Amino acid sequence: MCEANAYMVKDGNEELFLESVNVLEPKEGGKIYLENVLGEQKFFSGRIKEIRLVEHKIILEKFAKPV
Amino acid sequence: MCEANAYMVKDGNEELFLESVNVLEPKEGGKIYLENVLGEQKFFSGRIKEIRLVEHKIILEKFAKPV
Repeated sequence: MCEANAYMVKDGNEELFLESVNVLEPKEGGKIYLENVLGEQKFFSGRIKEIRLVEHKIILEKFAKPV
Repeated sequence: MCEANAYMVKDGNEELFLESVNVLEPKEGGKIYLENVLGEQKFFSGRIKEIRLVEHKIILEKFAKPV
C-alpha cells in the first residue's frame, strides 16, 4: 500500500498526526483535510511543509505565530 | 514504489506535469517544488488541489486569474 503517515512538526520534533493517509486536500482558510485508508478524517490548521512519498512521509507545520 | 504522478488541471482536464514524484515542497510565493525518483526537478506555480496516494495521484492547479 502506498499511503503515508502525516507528522506535525512541534518544537523541532515530528509528532504523528494521522497514519496511513490516503487523501490530502488543502482547504480555504489555512486548513488541510486528511483522510486515511480506514476512513478516519482529520483537519490540520497549518501548511504542508514537505511530502516524501518514497519515505511515506507527510510533514505538516503550524503557521508561525505573529510576534 | 510509492511515488505518484503529478497532474495539472487545465480546462477541466488533467495533464501530466511530472511523473514518479517523490518529493513535494510548497515554497514561498505560491510555487511548489517537485522532484521525482529520477532526480528531475520542476517548479509549479499554483497550489495543491488534492493528493490521492492510493491512486498515486497529485493534482495541481493554477491560481485563479483575477477577473
